[in-house]
Amino acid sequence: MSGQLPEALDTVAALLGRLPGVGKRSALRLAFHLLERPREEAVQLADALSALHGAVGYCTRCGHLSTGELCEICLDPRRDRHTLCVVETVPDLLAIEATGEFGGLYHVLHGVLSPLRGVGPGQLRLASLVDRVGSGGFSEVILATSISVEGEATAAYVQRLIHRTPQLMLSRIASGVPQGSDLEFIDQGTLGRALRARQTL
Amino acid sequence: MSGQLPEALDTVAALLGRLPGVGKRSALRLAFHLLERPREEAVQLADALSALHGAVGYCTRCGHLSTGELCEICLDPRRDRHTLCVVETVPDLLAIEATGEFGGLYHVLHGVLSPLRGVGPGQLRLASLVDRVGSGGFSEVILATSISVEGEATAAYVQRLIHRTPQLMLSRIASGVPQGSDLEFIDQGTLGRALRARQTL
Repeated sequence: MSGQLPEALDTVAALLGRLPGVGKRSALRLAFHLLERPREEAVQLADALSALHGAVGYCTRCGHLSTGELCEICLDPRRDRHTLCVVETVPDLLAIEATGEFGGLYHVLHGVLSPLRGVGPGQLRLASLVDRVGSGGFSEVILATSISVEGEATAAYVQRLIHRTPQLMLSRIASGVPQGSDLEFIDQGTLGRALRARQTL
Repeated sequence: MSGQLPEALDTVAALLGRLPGVGKRSALRLAFHLLERPREEAVQLADALSALHGAVGYCTRCGHLSTGELCEICLDPRRDRHTLCVVETVPDLLAIEATGEFGGLYHVLHGVLSPLRGVGPGQLRLASLVDRVGSGGFSEVILATSISVEGEATAAYVQRLIHRTPQLMLSRIASGVPQGSDLEFIDQGTLGRALRARQTL
């Protein structure tokens, strides 16, 4: 046993290590922690994990979390039905909601294009996006994928996919120096972008 | 739902957030990740967690991981039975084993004294340590708890607890500047310790 760990512990560590941001060492630390704590804690987590997918579903229209067929945002009569915001994930949607700056509808892609991780257009909710936009009614589609290589590539892909009409405006969220930042400590790429995208006053 | 999350997702996030080093935000990120991945992944982890405590036990003598009553180290006839190394946790034991510098036996306390977290002497494997040392046979007990406020307090407590005889040497692992470090970048406390514990050449 010295050096080599019991299989059950190794298995837990290996599975935890697959989670994003959890390294091999910290996965093992977590597994040991769970082993040291009362059995109930591991079982509680196990039960919650087993129940997760059954209890939470997605809105069939926009891809947001939902307990019914359509989510609360899609069903809300006060939302502006002419503006659509395309995001990568539900947490991104929630972040935009938290700003209070957007009152339209969403479309969650559930990922970004990432050839390295084997994510192609077929894995994203793109067909339903094209359908939604194609059926008309939207005056603006905001591409709010992340400002990263993958997010930019996905935005560019969506841009080509959507059939543009004179009635439809396509936009992309702004990229630049974040609020409260010292220019001195901002990375070159961001600062360069902020300069190129400068706005006349 | 906008703003407020489904209960099942919240539960998973709350339980993951209890793990050491997992903050509230990253716990939510992990919960979302598990929700986005195929259901099988969450279930696999759930099963592994449920099985953990049943499949892994501890050596009744030293507290190391074991599938039987006694662990492989306690049963190994080649180990030096006169030297005992007291450690906080199994990972600490494994770290010492990995150095190849120690060939004796271990005693795992399964924690440190921590009044703030409600860990008193009764929660640690101290009675069995006193029994083991008291039954004689050891010529040295090495206190290898961590070099931290709690680790030092625990070492001091164990030191008072163990009945000293002329035949028994008590020692503490050395503390000082770690290998490969620039003095310039070492914290004051460590550097101060290294000076006070200087060794004549």
